[in-house]
Amino acid sequence: MTTPTPAFFEQFDDEALVAADKAHYMHGYHVFDDHRENGALNIAAGDGAYIYDTKGNRYLDAVGGMWCTNIGLGREEMADAIADQVRKLAYSNPFCDMANVTAIELSEKLAELAPGDLNHVFLTTGGSTAVDTAYRLIQFYQNCRGKHDKKHIISRVNAYHGSTFLTMSLGGKAADHPAEFDFLQDKIHHISCPNPYRAPEGMTEADFLEFLVNEFEEKILSIGADNVAAFFAEPIMGSGGVIIPPTGYHQRMWEVCKRYDVLYVADEVVTSFGRLGAFFASDEVFGMQPDIITTAKGLTSGYLPLGALIFSDKIWNEIAQAGQERCFAHGFTYSGHPVSCISALKNIEIIQREKLLDHVQDVGSYLEERLQTLASLPLVGDVRCKKLMACVEFVADKRTKELFPEALNIGEKIHLKCQARGLLVRPIVHLNVMSPPLTITHAQVDEIVETLREAIEQTAEELLKDGSYAGN
Amino acid sequence: MTTPTPAFFEQFDDEALVAADKAHYMHGYHVFDDHRENGALNIAAGDGAYIYDTKGNRYLDAVGGMWCTNIGLGREEMADAIADQVRKLAYSNPFCDMANVTAIELSEKLAELAPGDLNHVFLTTGGSTAVDTAYRLIQFYQNCRGKHDKKHIISRVNAYHGSTFLTMSLGGKAADHPAEFDFLQDKIHHISCPNPYRAPEGMTEADFLEFLVNEFEEKILSIGADNVAAFFAEPIMGSGGVIIPPTGYHQRMWEVCKRYDVLYVADEVVTSFGRLGAFFASDEVFGMQPDIITTAKGLTSGYLPLGALIFSDKIWNEIAQAGQERCFAHGFTYSGHPVSCISALKNIEIIQREKLLDHVQDVGSYLEERLQTLASLPLVGDVRCKKLMACVEFVADKRTKELFPEALNIGEKIHLKCQARGLLVRPIVHLNVMSPPLTITHAQVDEIVETLREAIEQTAEELLKDGSYAGN
Repeated sequence: MTTPTPAFFEQFDDEALVAADKAHYMHGYHVFDDHRENGALNIAAGDGAYIYDTKGNRYLDAVGGMWCTNIGLGREEMADAIADQVRKLAYSNPFCDMANVTAIELSEKLAELAPGDLNHVFLTTGGSTAVDTAYRLIQFYQNCRGKHDKKHIISRVNAYHGSTFLTMSLGGKAADHPAEFDFLQDKIHHISCPNPYRAPEGMTEADFLEFLVNEFEEKILSIGADNVAAFFAEPIMGSGGVIIPPTGYHQRMWEVCKRYDVLYVADEVVTSFGRLGAFFASDEVFGMQPDIITTAKGLTSGYLPLGALIFSDKIWNEIAQAGQERCFAHGFTYSGHPVSCISALKNIEIIQREKLLDHVQDVGSYLEERLQTLASLPLVGDVRCKKLMACVEFVADKRTKELFPEALNIGEKIHLKCQARGLLVRPIVHLNVMSPPLTITHAQVDEIVETLREAIEQTAEELLKDGSYAGN
Repeated sequence: MTTPTPAFFEQFDDEALVAADKAHYMHGYHVFDDHRENGALNIAAGDGAYIYDTKGNRYLDAVGGMWCTNIGLGREEMADAIADQVRKLAYSNPFCDMANVTAIELSEKLAELAPGDLNHVFLTTGGSTAVDTAYRLIQFYQNCRGKHDKKHIISRVNAYHGSTFLTMSLGGKAADHPAEFDFLQDKIHHISCPNPYRAPEGMTEADFLEFLVNEFEEKILSIGADNVAAFFAEPIMGSGGVIIPPTGYHQRMWEVCKRYDVLYVADEVVTSFGRLGAFFASDEVFGMQPDIITTAKGLTSGYLPLGALIFSDKIWNEIAQAGQERCFAHGFTYSGHPVSCISALKNIEIIQREKLLDHVQDVGSYLEERLQTLASLPLVGDVRCKKLMACVEFVADKRTKELFPEALNIGEKIHLKCQARGLLVRPIVHLNVMSPPLTITHAQVDEIVETLREAIEQTAEELLKDGSYAGN
């Protein structure tokens, strides 16, 4: 849409919306006490990198929706393509011997974009169902091979892989495993988070890499290689805190996988479709060839729900063997949804036509550089940025890297100051996380960095004043 | 869309599509041998109750997509509403203290339509994620109450509850549990399918009801009531074979649930939004008040992916208790997707404005009546129909109810004969299943029934001739 006029916002009865929200709508990651007291920021419109609340306040959305509004909001040609598909074929049965044209075209396109022999596509409704399907595909593959014990999965501390019961169990974030939930523990193992900033004291990055690779290999051996099916890893951890592993990490972990016949699942729900300047980061950014890639988010730039997994000829050739009378008894009503698929095809077309990957190489490097200027500020322990995945980690003590008490909510404090200045960054406990649209400009990068700077400086002053920060 | 012209179909290169489909697209319930050999029926367009393959062949889609195209395909006003929302706000972060206007409005509307005190809504991407979320919500609820052992779930043989690892484990269809997949078995129990046609010989329907209720109660007692969290049940089983339970079944099962503090989860992914002539069937059709309803499919008439669960004040009041500092650490990127939500709101508006529920009462009764005229045909063991959920079960022997060998593929045989006559019914082993759009006319009901009749009669003759059927 073009910038909404003040008249646009007159249609909203804020009081009624807030009341209805509180009475009826349980959000994702609903924080009961806070929501009851403060309600929510109710969004009504979006245009490019900007979103608007119901009162007409404008925010530069450096969160990019939730790692997803890659081509930016409100694209006219996307609205047209979607409407056209709704008129033409709004739904089509995706099961057994039924297919539809857009799902086939998208599958072909994804196989073309994905690295190496990842030629087979299964379509889902988002990242969670893509990862959940990957887990089931791996079972299917191992059982087809007669490897009935080879079912253990190795994941990592701070990993995020989705929100179904299974994918939450694969995840390794403490905040996602509160006492109120139960998890599948049998056969899921978590090894260290490859965060160089939190490496054991005195370890160089090279030492840390050796430590991580050895830990992985020892974990496989302790479980028994015949029992380990797969390693799940985000190339760069997203909500685990934009964790950029030591150089060479993925290649080394991949080598270990190959040595022990362990599948490598690259969870690229966040890192694909341009966020790191490539359609897929596994090969182009990290020089590694996974057996399965899971994707979602940037796949449609969030315009419509869609997820996918793309898997290798090796897996296909095993499971699809002729004469076995096999059926992959798995699939979602909205697998291969024609309207979701057309939004992905249009999204890919726009990324290619507008050369957005080149733009990310440029503007992403600029964000990396500019964001590092915050490193010398008080409170700032670490600045992590790889192209358009970024985060600032706040600490009470730069030398010891000690964190503030969680109750101080340092990330939230700074986020709220940014919000008051018309900028959204995502608070995750001690972090502010950013993943702006790929279309972000140099001027908008400046706005993000300078607004963050003001918010951090002002917060540091306030904390110094009230005694909860000693300065460093 | 209006009926597509022959020129519309000239754009499709069938050979290339078939090749791409085989090379790159793994379908839901992919049947490897069959797909390799025969490819798929590739759908290109849809209009009302009709769909068209890429060659321009038209089919009356009595499957209704997959229980979902309730208002019919190609609605102009749906395309407009969706495009308008894409322009206005195509995506909005659904987490923590963020909300968007359409998600709030849809939550309020669902709370209004749902029976009793089901006032709280969580939005997902489809049925599987709705049921998976229900499972996690139940864990959350029981842990909040301090009932840490009360986690066992009772489900039923032939149930279908979705395709994630967890929801497939809840399901109870043998065909969904092939040897190539593993399942969560710990804490999930399956009791009998309430299929009157397959009741133990000599049992009246009243006896059978007592048997089912007693079995449920005994199962709870054998696990220990303090260990049983919930009962999951489709009001009418869908892909398990349109199983219409004995009269009074749901009320009686609900009474048992209340007696033992067991939550009743009504999985209304199929039965809601008009298929049985009501927005929700639990209360209006079966006189029962569940604690949680899961829905999807008809919620948007399949126009866009969306699922929801709607739960009680009782659950909310426990989990949302002030001062507990709780966070419901669960949610999907596409929870509350504004474009999916607008399609649900528009869908509900159309169902109400066009009085489609009244129409289903009428045309659904007509389908029930007309379909029963097939009961006397050869091969037909049972005709089950409740409003617009219908199925015909084929048997080798009407008296003994003996089935044909699976390899004979009786359902597929008859389905292919219908398909050649321009009608799609869904083959599930020994069944043909139907769930046409709510907008179906009396004339289209006649077409369905007469085409099925021809296909059944012709198949019976062929099977008699080749000796695989003895007649009865």
